[in-house]
Amino acid sequence: MLSYHPPWRDMRFVIEELLELPRQWSEMPAFSGVDATIARELIDQAGRFACDYLLPCNATGDEQGARLEGRDVYTPRGFPEAYRVFQQNGWPSLPFATADGGQGLPILLNTAIYEMFLATNHAWSMYTALLLPAYESLSHSASPELRARYLSKIVTGEWLVTMCLSEPQAGSDLGLISTRAVPQADGSHALSGTKIFISSGDHDLTHDILHLVLARLPDAVPGPKGLSLFVAAKWREDGSRNGIFVDGVEKKMGVKASATCVLRFDGATAWLVGEPHRGLAAMFPMMNSARLLSGVAGLGEAETAYQNAWRYASERHQLRAVHARGPGPSALIEHPAIRRLLLTLRARAEGSRFLCYQVAHLLDQSNHAADPQQRERAQRLALLLTPIVKAAITTAGFDNASEALQIFGGHGYLRDSGIEQTLRDARIGPIYEGTNQIQAIDLLARKGLADGAAGLNELFDWIDAGVPAQAAHGSALRQHIGQMRDFTRDIAEAAGGDAELPLRIADDYLAAMALLLIGQGFARADALAARAAGQGRGDADFYGAKRDTARFFVEFMLPEVNARLTQMRAARVWLPQLTSAT
Amino acid sequence: MLSYHPPWRDMRFVIEELLELPRQWSEMPAFSGVDATIARELIDQAGRFACDYLLPCNATGDEQGARLEGRDVYTPRGFPEAYRVFQQNGWPSLPFATADGGQGLPILLNTAIYEMFLATNHAWSMYTALLLPAYESLSHSASPELRARYLSKIVTGEWLVTMCLSEPQAGSDLGLISTRAVPQADGSHALSGTKIFISSGDHDLTHDILHLVLARLPDAVPGPKGLSLFVAAKWREDGSRNGIFVDGVEKKMGVKASATCVLRFDGATAWLVGEPHRGLAAMFPMMNSARLLSGVAGLGEAETAYQNAWRYASERHQLRAVHARGPGPSALIEHPAIRRLLLTLRARAEGSRFLCYQVAHLLDQSNHAADPQQRERAQRLALLLTPIVKAAITTAGFDNASEALQIFGGHGYLRDSGIEQTLRDARIGPIYEGTNQIQAIDLLARKGLADGAAGLNELFDWIDAGVPAQAAHGSALRQHIGQMRDFTRDIAEAAGGDAELPLRIADDYLAAMALLLIGQGFARADALAARAAGQGRGDADFYGAKRDTARFFVEFMLPEVNARLTQMRAARVWLPQLTSAT
Repeated sequence: MLSYHPPWRDMRFVIEELLELPRQWSEMPAFSGVDATIARELIDQAGRFACDYLLPCNATGDEQGARLEGRDVYTPRGFPEAYRVFQQNGWPSLPFATADGGQGLPILLNTAIYEMFLATNHAWSMYTALLLPAYESLSHSASPELRARYLSKIVTGEWLVTMCLSEPQAGSDLGLISTRAVPQADGSHALSGTKIFISSGDHDLTHDILHLVLARLPDAVPGPKGLSLFVAAKWREDGSRNGIFVDGVEKKMGVKASATCVLRFDGATAWLVGEPHRGLAAMFPMMNSARLLSGVAGLGEAETAYQNAWRYASERHQLRAVHARGPGPSALIEHPAIRRLLLTLRARAEGSRFLCYQVAHLLDQSNHAADPQQRERAQRLALLLTPIVKAAITTAGFDNASEALQIFGGHGYLRDSGIEQTLRDARIGPIYEGTNQIQAIDLLARKGLADGAAGLNELFDWIDAGVPAQAAHGSALRQHIGQMRDFTRDIAEAAGGDAELPLRIADDYLAAMALLLIGQGFARADALAARAAGQGRGDADFYGAKRDTARFFVEFMLPEVNARLTQMRAARVWLPQLTSAT
Repeated sequence: MLSYHPPWRDMRFVIEELLELPRQWSEMPAFSGVDATIARELIDQAGRFACDYLLPCNATGDEQGARLEGRDVYTPRGFPEAYRVFQQNGWPSLPFATADGGQGLPILLNTAIYEMFLATNHAWSMYTALLLPAYESLSHSASPELRARYLSKIVTGEWLVTMCLSEPQAGSDLGLISTRAVPQADGSHALSGTKIFISSGDHDLTHDILHLVLARLPDAVPGPKGLSLFVAAKWREDGSRNGIFVDGVEKKMGVKASATCVLRFDGATAWLVGEPHRGLAAMFPMMNSARLLSGVAGLGEAETAYQNAWRYASERHQLRAVHARGPGPSALIEHPAIRRLLLTLRARAEGSRFLCYQVAHLLDQSNHAADPQQRERAQRLALLLTPIVKAAITTAGFDNASEALQIFGGHGYLRDSGIEQTLRDARIGPIYEGTNQIQAIDLLARKGLADGAAGLNELFDWIDAGVPAQAAHGSALRQHIGQMRDFTRDIAEAAGGDAELPLRIADDYLAAMALLLIGQGFARADALAARAAGQGRGDADFYGAKRDTARFFVEFMLPEVNARLTQMRAARVWLPQLTSAT
């Protein structure tokens, strides 16, 4: 069975020391009441909820899965009760604006509590994780009438939500969506079409469910510019069931307790959100917000994998280490190959935390910084960083799960260990909310090079400026930043004559950028830890370990930037077309 | 559902063109009757068996799993019938000596047919895959009496076999084995103890099962030097059931149809194989042979993953590629990110095939080369290459499965796609038959540096000599060989004063050596393909694709040697001890 201890210490380190958020919050009018004590209490309470309610139904949820009976989907044992407690604690509305009845707390804190929820029960958390994304979309685009009708349901968590994009023929290519919306006399629309991969498409956690659906009006042009956004509730206002049918609950590799539904809309009553044919733009805040949470799922899994691998490696004794500390066979943790793995897992978990929290805070800044220029810059940076977080951190979660399983050896391959479930659950990360390949294209082709790399250069400046002047690892990091900056200039020019170039290298580019961002985090963390150690501030174990992790990251993991550059240089020159199954 | 087409063309390329085996066989007295036609017919027949009998019960086998009822284990539907056909075709005895009633065919051909068996049904193949390893052990060490009693059962496939090593407290550390063997008046021994992770520990494919068991005689010293090898049959000679009890069949992440048993020996009648206390040495040929087959499982999965990803990417159309060939959305295969992935999958599959077949042929040479010096050299090389094949190719199988799943996108995460089963099945590869970390230690610490790197230098010479003089990719490859040779000299000296050093870098060292070996294969393949294309020998698609794959490997994948060297240089200087759960 998996165990989990909320990583209080590192969460506090990132929030209070590394990002200095209590100070930053105090400078934002919206968060003037939020301080370190409130943050700690909230995280403490959410961590206990995760351990008391979510972890206990994680393995059983995997075993039982979500099940369809008649028209209705039922979640596994423990899921509805956990949801009731979640709702009673007021967590649905944590980051929503107070004007909408929310608590108006930072997205950072929502991110921190979801790290723990996703770490202990990825499947359960998927039911609630779309609340914030849906709120982002509706609060931006919905009419006052729709806001009045639906937003309060979401704020209280009385209803849960879905995001209905994919169709059998339309996955990465939303332009192929064919669900139709026919205007009705009462101002509503009748939706017809089949949506697939709809997480939480039906369930027993709430009585009603609000579906956000992309569909085409009769006068829509083909392609993505002909999509409009609608909301459709599970129940019509007259109490009758809306024309939304669960045609199946998918049997999946993992996150089995999350009901992934085939939803058939058959003349379902729906309401237009925002302007006709502007559905992608209206859905955009939702997709972006969901991408951050996908990264946070990877972070949670990276942490769980690390903790459990550490525990097993501490308890299991096999063979005698060269520098054995005790008599008899040594704990796995003493063996060099296992130390390498554990340090890799720790660097991934802590680096992922830094990056996720960094992006969450940029979102808070973009919403609430006092200075409008700072708001705009934060927004530009967050737009570039969101695909990086989504792709790099979902990869980190999966890699950590697989390498943790390796530390468990044969025992890790058994269901009882729990770690194989983490691996299966984590494997959805690089796929959902836009595959990691789509994220990379978004970063480099759609955003990065579209403005002649101006935004990317601002990002390089920002990373560079964050490296402390005297950082122990500053020069290695600055060298890599310089290489990537030069390479970016180079491809920005070359892409003019080779439109495919950005697409050939996007995956490597994103991975290299993630390494620079995390590297900057470790350079800063190391400088702080060195100072704390020098001041004899206590917590010597924590700061010493942080310095080890930072050095390990810079010496063992950051050089992957070079490997990525080598591949990008090769792909700049050549990548064959594939023509037949040879 | 997964599809599979035996990769005839590449198998023939490796066997007939790259390794020139028909010519080499003709020079070995034992194989003078084996030619390309026989090899092709055998592979053809085995490929049809794999497609007709093994593939159809692969997904259903995963669904049903092996099940324990009372004292007996039952395999899924289709498994016993496939076994009967396998046995009728005479395949159990394919590589066994004719003197023992076998067919005396090359291990290479056994490897080729197992590639297809493992590609289509990993779990089923695990029941039969230990026949050759068990034969290797018994034919080396068993007394004439034991050979007469048991070898014929194995040769005909009338019985299947197990390898009983692990115990709850003894996984990688066989020295901790505690199963006891008490001598009996009739010359037998009574075995008592619990063995875990016993593949095929019980099943309904054969009436009887021969267990090869490591245990301790009463006068054994502690540790690995106190282990003796025994055989114990499921049934005693008087027809009564032996004292061997299935205490459980493990619930696993994958290869669920392979019965992984907890076997309790309770006074089981057993017979000593070879000398007392020489059990590890007697088991050694079996473990080594099983390691090659673990690599072959990775090869099979790498190929299946590649084929299915290619098929899906050819059929699925999403978004319009920059260089789109047709109207409307383009096949995934036209998109650069997918081309990168597919070329990676192909290079891994073809490179893995070359390496597995290379090692199998070295084993054939070590047994049957006319020149005794050649035999000895082949044996030395095979000993070094076996851990490389086991670790690198099981990793390749898992990585290919995961990246193929990524190409499938959301559909790959569904059970129906079949590819998620390949990922789950492939995840055991880096664990079983000695974890990949143990393989790396075996390569570098136990073997490579034990003789002052003499064997490793012979291996470098051999790789170097295999690179064609005019090879297009020769200089890149020779440069990497040179770097690794220099680094090896360096650490061979440094290890004298730093006994832990080889253990800190072993995983990277093994991975880098695999890249050199596969790189040599691609350099040779490219030279052959260039010549064939120049001669207009037909098959232009195949040879053109082979040249693309070779170039892709050298430019995109081989440079990982540099990344590994960077990590090894860092680990040479520093790797912290881990002291607390920080």
